Amino acid sequence: MADKQCNVALIGSKFMGKTHSNAYLKVGKFFDLPVDPVMHTLVARDPDATASFAKRWGWQHASTDWEKVVRDDDIQLVDVATPNNTHAPMAIAALEAGKHVACEKPLASTLDEARQMRDAAAKADGKTLTWFSYRGCPALALAQRMVAKGKLGRIYHVRANYLQGWAGPDVPLLWRFKGETAGSGAHGDLGAHIIDAARFVTGEEVTEVCGSVEETFIKEREIPEGEAGNIKGGTGSTGKKGPVTVDDTVAFLARLSGGGVATFEATRMATGNQNANRIEVNGEHGAIRWDFENMNVLWYFNAADDPETAGWQRIMCTSADAHPYAHAWWPDAHVLGYEHGFINAAACFFQEIGGEKPEVPMPDFNDAYQTQRVLEAALLAARNRAWVNLNEVK
Amino acid sequence: MADKQCNVALIGSKFMGKTHSNAYLKVGKFFDLPVDPVMHTLVARDPDATASFAKRWGWQHASTDWEKVVRDDDIQLVDVATPNNTHAPMAIAALEAGKHVACEKPLASTLDEARQMRDAAAKADGKTLTWFSYRGCPALALAQRMVAKGKLGRIYHVRANYLQGWAGPDVPLLWRFKGETAGSGAHGDLGAHIIDAARFVTGEEVTEVCGSVEETFIKEREIPEGEAGNIKGGTGSTGKKGPVTVDDTVAFLARLSGGGVATFEATRMATGNQNANRIEVNGEHGAIRWDFENMNVLWYFNAADDPETAGWQRIMCTSADAHPYAHAWWPDAHVLGYEHGFINAAACFFQEIGGEKPEVPMPDFNDAYQTQRVLEAALLAARNRAWVNLNEVK
Amino acid sequence: MADKQCNVALIGSKFMGKTHSNAYLKVGKFFDLPVDPVMHTLVARDPDATASFAKRWGWQHASTDWEKVVRDDDIQLVDVATPNNTHAPMAIAALEAGKHVACEKPLASTLDEARQMRDAAAKADGKTLTWFSYRGCPALALAQRMVAKGKLGRIYHVRANYLQGWAGPDVPLLWRFKGETAGSGAHGDLGAHIIDAARFVTGEEVTEVCGSVEETFIKEREIPEGEAGNIKGGTGSTGKKGPVTVDDTVAFLARLSGGGVATFEATRMATGNQNANRIEVNGEHGAIRWDFENMNVLWYFNAADDPETAGWQRIMCTSADAHPYAHAWWPDAHVLGYEHGFINAAACFFQEIGGEKPEVPMPDFNDAYQTQRVLEAALLAARNRAWVNLNEVK
Amino acid sequence: MADKQCNVALIGSKFMGKTHSNAYLKVGKFFDLPVDPVMHTLVARDPDATASFAKRWGWQHASTDWEKVVRDDDIQLVDVATPNNTHAPMAIAALEAGKHVACEKPLASTLDEARQMRDAAAKADGKTLTWFSYRGCPALALAQRMVAKGKLGRIYHVRANYLQGWAGPDVPLLWRFKGETAGSGAHGDLGAHIIDAARFVTGEEVTEVCGSVEETFIKEREIPEGEAGNIKGGTGSTGKKGPVTVDDTVAFLARLSGGGVATFEATRMATGNQNANRIEVNGEHGAIRWDFENMNVLWYFNAADDPETAGWQRIMCTSADAHPYAHAWWPDAHVLGYEHGFINAAACFFQEIGGEKPEVPMPDFNDAYQTQRVLEAALLAARNRAWVNLNEVK
Repeated sequence: MADKQCNVALIGSKFMGKTHSNAYLKVGKFFDLPVDPVMHTLVARDPDATASFAKRWGWQHASTDWEKVVRDDDIQLVDVATPNNTHAPMAIAALEAGKHVACEKPLASTLDEARQMRDAAAKADGKTLTWFSYRGCPALALAQRMVAKGKLGRIYHVRANYLQGWAGPDVPLLWRFKGETAGSGAHGDLGAHIIDAARFVTGEEVTEVCGSVEETFIKEREIPEGEAGNIKGGTGSTGKKGPVTVDDTVAFLARLSGGGVATFEATRMATGNQNANRIEVNGEHGAIRWDFENMNVLWYFNAADDPETAGWQRIMCTSADAHPYAHAWWPDAHVLGYEHGFINAAACFFQEIGGEKPEVPMPDFNDAYQTQRVLEAALLAARNRAWVNLNEVK
Repeated sequence: MADKQCNVALIGSKFMGKTHSNAYLKVGKFFDLPVDPVMHTLVARDPDATASFAKRWGWQHASTDWEKVVRDDDIQLVDVATPNNTHAPMAIAALEAGKHVACEKPLASTLDEARQMRDAAAKADGKTLTWFSYRGCPALALAQRMVAKGKLGRIYHVRANYLQGWAGPDVPLLWRFKGETAGSGAHGDLGAHIIDAARFVTGEEVTEVCGSVEETFIKEREIPEGEAGNIKGGTGSTGKKGPVTVDDTVAFLARLSGGGVATFEATRMATGNQNANRIEVNGEHGAIRWDFENMNVLWYFNAADDPETAGWQRIMCTSADAHPYAHAWWPDAHVLGYEHGFINAAACFFQEIGGEKPEVPMPDFNDAYQTQRVLEAALLAARNRAWVNLNEVK
Repeated sequence: MADKQCNVALIGSKFMGKTHSNAYLKVGKFFDLPVDPVMHTLVARDPDATASFAKRWGWQHASTDWEKVVRDDDIQLVDVATPNNTHAPMAIAALEAGKHVACEKPLASTLDEARQMRDAAAKADGKTLTWFSYRGCPALALAQRMVAKGKLGRIYHVRANYLQGWAGPDVPLLWRFKGETAGSGAHGDLGAHIIDAARFVTGEEVTEVCGSVEETFIKEREIPEGEAGNIKGGTGSTGKKGPVTVDDTVAFLARLSGGGVATFEATRMATGNQNANRIEVNGEHGAIRWDFENMNVLWYFNAADDPETAGWQRIMCTSADAHPYAHAWWPDAHVLGYEHGFINAAACFFQEIGGEKPEVPMPDFNDAYQTQRVLEAALLAARNRAWVNLNEVK
Repeated sequence: MADKQCNVALIGSKFMGKTHSNAYLKVGKFFDLPVDPVMHTLVARDPDATASFAKRWGWQHASTDWEKVVRDDDIQLVDVATPNNTHAPMAIAALEAGKHVACEKPLASTLDEARQMRDAAAKADGKTLTWFSYRGCPALALAQRMVAKGKLGRIYHVRANYLQGWAGPDVPLLWRFKGETAGSGAHGDLGAHIIDAARFVTGEEVTEVCGSVEETFIKEREIPEGEAGNIKGGTGSTGKKGPVTVDDTVAFLARLSGGGVATFEATRMATGNQNANRIEVNGEHGAIRWDFENMNVLWYFNAADDPETAGWQRIMCTSADAHPYAHAWWPDAHVLGYEHGFINAAACFFQEIGGEKPEVPMPDFNDAYQTQRVLEAALLAARNRAWVNLNEVK
């Protein structure tokens, strides 16, 4: 356990409120950190639900007043896990109050807001983290490390898909299908992850979007009774339909700064896939493949192998001595799950806060802003039916 | 065995000469056809090599004069398995001589030639076949059958990749890297297959290309001594370099006639992949996935399954009673290989020639011309950096 | 959160001390239980290490005196996570003191002790749990549920392997290789799990062992300096060798009460495997397959499926509405890891303690005693080179 | 093509008659052999069917008199592809007539006959081959080559299963279920293959059978109308039942000459499996895995790999330069099928006949006799409920 502690205020108590609470609960027990988190204050809108959530998860305090909490002297770290359109005001206020700030992805609901957050972070003393939690998966972090070591050499191809299939025509008009509540559809929700993953693993930037398709396959859905809280949605039926105002899918092509070609596709309509966050990278000296649905495994091809035995290698990324994060966990092949991505990412952030170099690079607000630029460029390309040079997207 | 026979003249004795000879050798032994092929005449350029090849494979005659052979009254079927830029004159001459004509893919090296072939076929009495031999794989044929029956419903997504990885920077300047000999790079060689597969399986047409990237990663290669006959190339080294004049990869996005979105990628630079001809189709009621590297297996997801047990099903497509072509072969899971795609496709063509409905639809010249239009549209989009409506490509 | 609470005393602070602490930490946060655990007292041998572990994990008290703690009126549940040869005295004392008792597997280091524990449990008021934690994996629990529903029908075959490969000849003489400290080798450590899994999933008992091989491949190993605390072992070398006094592997054949045939194999010498806890069950109406290394997936074959599409189905066992435990966790395919087996098993035990029917049946001491009988029968068969009828093993 | 030729007489025209005919048809076209086969005479029982089969497949002559044909001076090679109980007289007669002799597996229906065949071969001048055709699969042959090179080191474990699932209770009483026609059930049919595979790959012998179970799950089946010719069986129903007189499964444990432990299981009742001929071998330095259902792939684990990237490697065994048989076939990952096992095995036999060392070792009658001894030992162990030392089985 660390000598130093860091009081955390978490804003948000839905799906991400739960994953983050769990991360704070566990990270100091498994990792030897320079600073351990203290679960100080939970902030959400409904007083009773907030108090109840805080009690269950062991938050010491509960509040409904985020503006007060982000300025509270007792707080060192503010974690924003609210809808995308609230990220900017909360995060910027916290930065201006001198806090470290963590924020859910995508960084913001517009590129303007993302740029403001990036600028606020640049001026502030606090550290920033954007929760691209898949960087906390050992297999993806290993891919990054291998590329950084030169094991793939020059990158020719990136194929990054995030395929979900839950949004069939019978799913009602949840908040996730409405622009005003969700900010974005599959593109912002899923596409942001794979753009980050491609940038993270390759260490390269998208320089040009060379084609893009945005599509809403189901243009109207049935309006559910009440508000739907979960991904699968509503309880009753109103018999009325309303328009879907976000995308079901965005797919786009890109060129990378190292000369490679990348394809990206994010969708909720890939029937049969549940959480297939997949990336393949082919380089001069080797290749890697990953699919979150089998998250502990990284596939690797070494082009220099003896042809007799060369082939895709299934690396079970759980070796304490050899793989990112694995030292903190269980013996070989005693595998990790979804939640560990958050815990591992949190460990890196507390390493940074404590003045150490994080064992895996995590995205600060500037880094997440670069991802947001690509999201924007892909939309511009789709809507203008034109190539978009990233230099023009700022 | 059939009462009727059909004398075949095959032009070409390289890789495809071998796959086609093998198909004629075997198809009548495994299938009960209305017409059996007779291996009548082999045509190639070098007299000695042609005679030797003919003897080995059991061709009754050998010739170096294709123009004579395609008009020979003893011949009923002419099979063109030569470089792409010779397809048009040979096939058109054979059609005009009243023959049935089979031709390797892509149909031609230019859209103009392809259109001329299509027109010649429309006027002629003979049947035509384009050797998109993967339609002869039971799994892909089953996918087509399932879509045709409505098992997938409305198609949302097609993801079609043909990934090979043999063309690293050390591979010399083979004929396959030169426009004048190869006609096209990965796009014509591999891309043609996945465009055909997407059209075949979905029964839909590409209506628009919404972005495309064409890239030659290795712009110069070492000139080998002598001419390289095989895919891996040269024997000696000249120490000199020459320019690569075909693409290493083309990737493009498209919209389909049923409203779906498709991504296509053909490449020789996907290190680690050898012959990963892959297609995924997601529809309203289900989905399928296929990868040629495990060619006997079709993956299927049925969205109507009980959630308790729903999941991707691994269909081993070898059931004589239930799967295309399987009746002609071995017991369950006594699997087929690459060559059987050609044999099965040949069976369908002889069914057609004999007046029967083929058990799986095969692409005639008009059908292959539609695929050629998509190839062309993808190139135009890449070169003009603009979307291309298929109506404008004729 | 529950109204009622249950004070827990955990004895043991090594690998299993960690997995159990983590389970108590989390189970009440994810599950809605009739009784929530309170992390009351940690017991271990070394005072400083015990205090430190307790502080890190949030145990309210630390003690080195298990005999006192198991009789402490403040404690309702005693959890025994110590070496096998200490299970019996601790568990029996706790039962006699009226506590609920959880105990690590195998139940004991001898059949005699296991029988005494079973008898003590039969007389006591407390509930008992044996930590066959893989019953807490949703996929294995789903297999059990499907068999119980009759989806497999009459069972013909069980194939249960637990393959690890860490014990190559260079691994020194760790405590795990010595009978006096480990009690048993692969058989007791890994074999116990697969016997439990086979009994759990099929609901059948082993009636006869029809052959068995026990082998220690590496008969001597280098004695390490100091005592090795972890699975991989020692720090320095003494240059001396000592005898290995436990098995590296036991494999055996068995008949099941429903007439089926089972093969079991547990080993630490299956190079290439890390934690391949695998089971396959073939029945009249269907079959299942599972491998812990991809723990969230259950493979299912339904013999009644349409032959056109029949095939092994990959069930991702994460559907809140359809799969065991999944309601407590994340959205579809946001997968679980090794530790969740313990948390889920704990949830079932607290359901029982609170008077509810557990959502998945967990093994009490009598159930674990049946598994211990099979372990014993397999050893007898190997050592006597004879078949062993289970009626003779009591 | 070879200068020399070898006239072949094939006895049998059912399933194996077809696979062997196909092998003779193709082997000389793909391989450069010292001797090419000539399809001289086909022998079977029914005159019309024999003539028809011979015509279809290109056999020059047809006969119903095997005794005459095996002594015919024009014949150099006799191939026995008839029911097991006819192997001995036919093969011995042919050997005595000075022919080369190939024979289907298992070598004979009794150990006595097998020994007589072995002895006859020892005295004769002709070469012998037993059609353990899976040695003709490149992946299995690569496994053998790798073990022979020492890549696995000392062998600890062999796990060999041959799982089929076609024999559910509704399948009628086919000839395969009757001892008098089939000679043996799963054990002789499938078990023979995996015993051969284990011996072939490891180069070791079974020294002891340490337990064995023989079981006929379905003891009576409905008697079909007429005789059933294929694996799936009958056409009509008689409403009567008759006894099954062969095993549905045999599973046994064994010790190997190098000190390893092996498990074997052959069955027709492993629902969900169609032709899962699987072998896993774990050694000190590495491990291999193979499953015929994905026959072109060998999985390999190299224990000396860097832990960062170590993992099971998927070797696609199609590299002309590096893998057995691949030089004769297609480019990388243009995969082979079931039939190629026979063609490749035939190539090796003609290499031997022509005085060359075969590229992969094939089993002569003595080799197949060793496999037959293991088959016998496993039966003795099951029936006597006792360990069996192989020295006692001669």
